[in-house]
Parts: sequence; C-alpha cells; structure tokens
Amino acid sequence: MPEIRFNVVTQDWIVFAGERARRPDQFAEHGIERQPRPARDPQCPFCPGNEAMTPPEIFRLPADGNWKVRVVPNKFAALDSQGELHRRAWGLKRVISGVGLHEVLIEAPEHDRTMPMLEPEEMRSIIRVYHQRYCAAAADPRVAHVTVFKNHGLRAGTSLVHTHSQLIATPIIPPQVRSRMENALRFYDEYGDCVFCRVLAEEEADAERVVVSTDRFLAFIPFAAYSPFHTWIYPRHHEASFALATDEELDDLAVTLRTVLRKTWRGLNDPDFNLAVRSAPAECAMVKYYHWYLSVIPRVTRIAGFELGSGMFINTGIPEQTAGFLRSVPAG
Amino acid sequence: MPEIRFNVVTQDWIVFAGERARRPDQFAEHGIERQPRPARDPQCPFCPGNEAMTPPEIFRLPADGNWKVRVVPNKFAALDSQGELHRRAWGLKRVISGVGLHEVLIEAPEHDRTMPMLEPEEMRSIIRVYHQRYCAAAADPRVAHVTVFKNHGLRAGTSLVHTHSQLIATPIIPPQVRSRMENALRFYDEYGDCVFCRVLAEEEADAERVVVSTDRFLAFIPFAAYSPFHTWIYPRHHEASFALATDEELDDLAVTLRTVLRKTWRGLNDPDFNLAVRSAPAECAMVKYYHWYLSVIPRVTRIAGFELGSGMFINTGIPEQTAGFLRSVPAG
Repeated sequence: MPEIRFNVVTQDWIVFAGERARRPDQFAEHGIERQPRPARDPQCPFCPGNEAMTPPEIFRLPADGNWKVRVVPNKFAALDSQGELHRRAWGLKRVISGVGLHEVLIEAPEHDRTMPMLEPEEMRSIIRVYHQRYCAAAADPRVAHVTVFKNHGLRAGTSLVHTHSQLIATPIIPPQVRSRMENALRFYDEYGDCVFCRVLAEEEADAERVVVSTDRFLAFIPFAAYSPFHTWIYPRHHEASFALATDEELDDLAVTLRTVLRKTWRGLNDPDFNLAVRSAPAECAMVKYYHWYLSVIPRVTRIAGFELGSGMFINTGIPEQTAGFLRSVPAG
Repeated sequence: MPEIRFNVVTQDWIVFAGERARRPDQFAEHGIERQPRPARDPQCPFCPGNEAMTPPEIFRLPADGNWKVRVVPNKFAALDSQGELHRRAWGLKRVISGVGLHEVLIEAPEHDRTMPMLEPEEMRSIIRVYHQRYCAAAADPRVAHVTVFKNHGLRAGTSLVHTHSQLIATPIIPPQVRSRMENALRFYDEYGDCVFCRVLAEEEADAERVVVSTDRFLAFIPFAAYSPFHTWIYPRHHEASFALATDEELDDLAVTLRTVLRKTWRGLNDPDFNLAVRSAPAECAMVKYYHWYLSVIPRVTRIAGFELGSGMFINTGIPEQTAGFLRSVPAG
C-alpha cells in the first residue's frame, strides 16, 4: 500500500508511490551525457585568462595571486543591482521594480572539475565565500531575502558547465519562505520549540534516514522528502539565519556537504542536482522558531503535470531505503 | 529594468528577468528529439490490439465497436484504489494510507498522433471523458480532490509516448489548493467578488495578454505567469468546480484548448508541455469565491535551484510579448 506522508516543516503532503517505487540503485543515471571537457576552455568566461569576459570582480580568494574562488555579477542578471526600489499598483496588478543582486560564485579555476570532485580545502573556501556573500547581500538595505544556490547539469538548469554557484537577493521575502515561517511560528506557539530542532532530534533518534552525522550537522532524507535522495543538512545548533553560522560550523558544513555530494555522485553516477541554502530573512535572524539549512536535490525524476496541477509531489524513492543506500556508498 | 509581478490568484511574486528575457520566437524548440513513430506499435500497451496489456478497462468511447478514447487504471498507480483510508500519527509524523485513484485516459488509438494534432471532434470526446472521469472520481467517498492532467514529452515527465492524459484522485486536499482557496476567500471577504472573475474581466479589458477568446472561455497568459507561455483558460461563467461545467462549456473548452495547443505546437515547434485542470475540491463545488480553470504549461525552461530554494520563479518570457506571438500564430 502506498502512503501519503506529511512534511511537518513545509506542511506538504507527499505521495510515496506503491507500484512505481524503485530500488535506490535504479535511480543511478546512465542517460546523462557528460562531454569530456578540457582543463581550460578558451571560450569559457569562468576560466582563468578570460576574466575580462565577466563583469568586474566583486570578491576573490585568495586576495592576491591566482584566484581559487571568484565572485562576479551575473552577466545576464535576473535582477538589477542599480536603481531604486519602487512599487506600483493599479487594478489587480502589483509590481515591484526588479532591484536586487545576482552573483556568480566560480568555485574552481579548472573547467573540467565539478563540486563533488573538489578537495576538502576547496569546499571549505566555497562555503566561506557562500557565507561572505550571503552576509554582504543581506546587509544591502534594498534586500529582503537572499538565496544561495547551485545548478549542476542540464536537468538542474545549468547553462554554463564550468562549476559555479549563484546568489540572488530579492527586494521581497518569497511568499513560500513567509508561509514556512508562519508554519514554524504556529508550531512554536503550540509546543514552545523550534520545529526544525524537533525534526533534527527525531531523525537522529530514528537513525534510519540519516545520511551523515557530524559534530555540528545532521544530513538526512526527510521523512516526507519531495523527491528521491532529496537531502536536508541541518545545523545542530539552533540558528534562524545562515548569517549566524560560525567559522567552525562553516568548516563542518563543508565536510558534511562534500560527503553527501560524493555519496550521491558515486551512488547515482554523477546525477544532475540542485543545492540551496534556506535561511530566515535577515530581518528575522534572531527568531527562536526558524532554522536555516541546506537542501541537496538530485534531479533524478521530473516535475510533471500532477505536481504542477496540484502542488503535491509523488516520490518514487522510499526515504529509509534511499538513505540506507547513501550510507552504504563510500564518500571516498 | 526587470520587474517583479504579483500573481493575485496564487499570491506568488514572479521575477520577469531583464537581461535574460528572450524574444518569443527564441523559445521554439530545436533540441527535442521526436523519434518518428509507427501508427501502431506492437509493444505499446495503449495501442489497439494490446488491450490485454493494461488493467481492465474502466470507460470507453464509443461504448461499442473500435474505441476512440479509452480509460484504464494506471498499471503503476501512485495510489491504491483498494483498501481503507486510515491515518497514523506518532512523534512529528503524520501518515495517511495511499488510497485513491490513478487512471490513464488514452486519447486516440493511433500511436503516432499527439493532442495538438487531433481533430476538433476528437478533442471534444477527450474533454467529455475528462469531465466524466472527474465526476466519477469526485463521487468516490474516499476522494477529497481530483487532478486531471497531461504530460507531453520527456521534459514534461512522460514515460509512454502514446498520447494520453491522467487522473489522480487523492484522499486529501492538496495544501497548495487549500492555500489558494484561502487567498480567494480573503479576496471575496474584502471585495465581495471572485478574484478569478475579476482577473478575467481585467485581462479581457487589457487584451494584450489574451491568446484566444471564445463565447464561454478566455485563454490568456497571466500578468504574473510562472514560466514562458504558461496559459490559463478560464470559463467566463462563475463556477468553482469542473464538475459543474455544462456540455456547451465542455465543447467550447475543447475548441479553446485545441486552439491554444495548436498555436503553441506551431509557434514553439512541438514543445513538451503539461496541462492540468484546476478545480475546487468536490466538497466546495458551490462556493462563490473559487473558480475552476485549465492550465497549459509549455516546458521550454527548467525549474532550477533558485525556484527550488525560494519557491519564487524567474520567467524569461514577457507575457505581453509571448501572448502577442501566440495570437499571431495561426491555429490552422
């Protein structure tokens, strides 16, 4: 019998399909074409030597010499970093000017490496840059919310193959973030506790959906995950905002994320994936009821008409099985 | 300057990208491989002669002789049509047994035709069958909500190429449907009117986002559409539930939908697409504040990390331009 599980954090119901459930190893990608790539591509705007092909650099690591991580404005920005924020309203229409930030975080100089292939030290730098850029964007007075994310592979929406992440800072708080905060607030009012902290404790006790456990983070497949291998990485210490993460936490996050990505990469044969840091908006950084986290979403299935037509998801991977599978795959 | 528009029906903000906006004709698909298909495939469970490859037939048109439309249970059903509905709760976990209906509506006997290629008479039959199955499913006492949808092409989540739609009836009302109803109710309380009826009137008056206008329906690209060419088809007459559509409306819907699909098919070179009937749950069929409609979603862009990480969408097609483009394409 299939079951429909409730995600207490997002308040969504997810269908865990009966007849169409697949074994964890059946999600391994075989059809994705990864063209062999040179270590440097003269046409790639993210390759060393081509720095003039991007808008002027915002940030880099290290500060001198050859860069290892480089941040530039997105040349095809979804939002405009210049101009005033204003609102218009007429009839049923409400429009805000598209002011905001859209940055590209180039993760490594080499054209032929991807995030799961990077060394621990490199991941540490990237996560530090995530945090540095998050804090800088959140401090912009026009910015209400910041999303740091990554698209790996065509199915995940990449257009450029050179490994990179992105940051989009919007002048409004996304309604979905608002509604999740409202849910968490209601939970807090009812139980006097952060729902994320409770989930973390329950997942740790259950153990069967845990993928990686470290000193400062727990990576697990949620009881009601949206899609197969969808993994949440929660900081153990209660913090609403990513801005509050300490250096020790960032370094531990780099290790935890790298382990999850390498297990996924090996176990699922380099699947396309998305990654996103979810955080309370800057104005709510100190609230007791919300908790930042990182989501890893391998794109091994498609969002189809049922999902678009109902907002519900059908998940063909059983969390206990997919988590067990990932635990068994060496991160190497 | 990009703008961020508010969708008054869904209460979402959509980013209309500045630098990355594309001309309507730039969305035409060139990369999608459509393998030439025979008119009949001996391996296809939806082809005539292979009826034994599907579970027993639920419904067919016409009742006798060769079928033109055929409805069967999905062999790999996401939900189980047998068994009792029960709930369990322990710790933070809430689970409902996966009881429900999952049907396949085979739209035509021929293996090599797709919905945009079908004749008006055939579309009329399909929409009548949509309605018949919708009403039958909604009458099942275990069913709380019914979604009729279609996946066309790989990007849209199809696994079988033979043209078909699906119906999933869930034992719960999807939370997204609930929240949209709450939004509509608040609008009604504030303005004493159905927000959908208001949108319909405003879109008709503005005219620039209209794709097709018929006696009983208006097809338009919403002011804050989620993705390029995302089209809504609204019945002009206020009705919360698809179950209440009259035969005249169903026939007009078939014409309207066919026109939209043919314009999309020609203008965008046979893109993958999803289609979904969105309706109030059966228990709310008579409410004054909600309005059923049909969504057509060409899958010409990808849902990426920003969308998954924030719930906000970036749309690279400007509704006024994409609607103008579709108006200019003959439905032929």
